[in-house]
Amino acid sequence: MSKLRLQISMSLDGYTSGPDQSVKEPLGVGGERLHQWVVALRVWRTAHGQAGGEDNESSRVLEAEIANTGATIMGRHMFGGHPGGWDAEKPWRGWWGANPPFHHPVFVLTHHERAPLAMEGGTTFHFITNGIESALEQARRAAGGKDIALAGGANICQQYLNAGLVDEMEIHQVPVLLGGGERLFERVTELHGLELVETIATPNVTHFKFLKR
Amino acid sequence: MSKLRLQISMSLDGYTSGPDQSVKEPLGVGGERLHQWVVALRVWRTAHGQAGGEDNESSRVLEAEIANTGATIMGRHMFGGHPGGWDAEKPWRGWWGANPPFHHPVFVLTHHERAPLAMEGGTTFHFITNGIESALEQARRAAGGKDIALAGGANICQQYLNAGLVDEMEIHQVPVLLGGGERLFERVTELHGLELVETIATPNVTHFKFLKR
Repeated sequence: MSKLRLQISMSLDGYTSGPDQSVKEPLGVGGERLHQWVVALRVWRTAHGQAGGEDNESSRVLEAEIANTGATIMGRHMFGGHPGGWDAEKPWRGWWGANPPFHHPVFVLTHHERAPLAMEGGTTFHFITNGIESALEQARRAAGGKDIALAGGANICQQYLNAGLVDEMEIHQVPVLLGGGERLFERVTELHGLELVETIATPNVTHFKFLKR
Repeated sequence: MSKLRLQISMSLDGYTSGPDQSVKEPLGVGGERLHQWVVALRVWRTAHGQAGGEDNESSRVLEAEIANTGATIMGRHMFGGHPGGWDAEKPWRGWWGANPPFHHPVFVLTHHERAPLAMEGGTTFHFITNGIESALEQARRAAGGKDIALAGGANICQQYLNAGLVDEMEIHQVPVLLGGGERLFERVTELHGLELVETIATPNVTHFKFLKR
C-alpha cells in the first residue's frame, strides 16, 4: 500500500517556520534559512525550472523524496495567500507560478470550499474541507499506488502525527536557531511507532528518516 | 585558553528533561530515555564504578567529553535535592553517592550560600551565589588550563548561551519525543557564532558538535 510520508525542514530548536509570518515573509523571519540546503541543489532547481545547482549527499535524499510520489497533501497556510475565504475576483493560485513543481494532484486542507484548480504540468490543486482522513483517502486514490507526500505546515503535520497516520517521517534538521515560529512537534507527545532508521549527516543539514515499525 | 563546553542530551522535540519533574523523577516522566545511550557505555559505567557495558561509536564521543575537563559547572536543579535553602540537619550531597564521577571541582549555581562540600575521589562541590560569570571565572581558575564542562540543566545552559560564553556545544540528540519538560533553547534566539563542525550519527543518538567560529 502507498505510504504517507511527512517531509519537512526543521531548525535545531524545532521550528518549521520563523517568527512573525506574513504575506511578505511567508516562512517568518529567518525561515528561508531552513531551505537553503535544498534550493542550492541541482535536482531541486531542475524541478523548479531553474538551471545550475550543486550535487551533494543531500541530492539523493531529495531524489528519493520525489521518486514514487503520486500525490501531495498540504495545509492552506502552505498553499498561501490571503487568510479566510477565497478572493472571488482574483483567487490565490499558490506560490509556485503557472507550472508548479509537483506534477501530480495536490490536496490542500482548508475551511473554505473551492473548485479544483488545474495548473500547467500536471499539477491540480484540490481543496478539501472535510478533514485529514478524507484528504488522505482522496490523495491515496489519486496517487495510483504511489506514495503521498505530507508537505506541511506544522499544524497539518501535527494532525496527521497525532492520528497515527504517518508511515514515514523525513526530517531535514538545519543547525540554526529561529527562536520562534511554528514548532513541528507542538502538541505531539508520541511518535506512534515511528522509529529512526537512517541518518545522513552533511555540514548544512542532517537528514533523519523514521519508519513505522 | 580553556574552553567552556556545553554537553547535554536533548530529545527530538528539544527537551533536556521530561514533564512533571519531581524528587522521585528528577528527569521528569520519560526523561531517562535521554540517557539510555550513555549509561549503556563501558566508558560511562567505568567512570561510575560499574562493570560491563558496550563499546560503540558513542564511546569515543564520551571519551572526548571527559578528556581534558578540569572543572564542571551545573545548576542547582541538576545538583538536585529539595528546593529552596539547604537543609541544616541533613544537607543534600548530590545524586552521585560518596564518590561522584567528576573527580574535579564542580561549581553549582544556586541562590543559597553553602560551604564547599568535599567528596571522595577528588570531587568538591562549590556553591556559587553571585552569577554565571563568577562561576565561570572560578571554574576556569580551578581547571588549571583544562576545559570546563557545562553540564546543565536547561536554564543554566540558556544563561551561558545568551551571554555568548559557550565556546563549544555538544548536543546528543535522541530520536524520541518527551512532549513536555524543559526545552534547551527556550528563550535562546541565536547561537552567538557557534557553528556545526561535526555530526556523528548512530541508531540511538546523533552527536552534534558546534564550535565558536
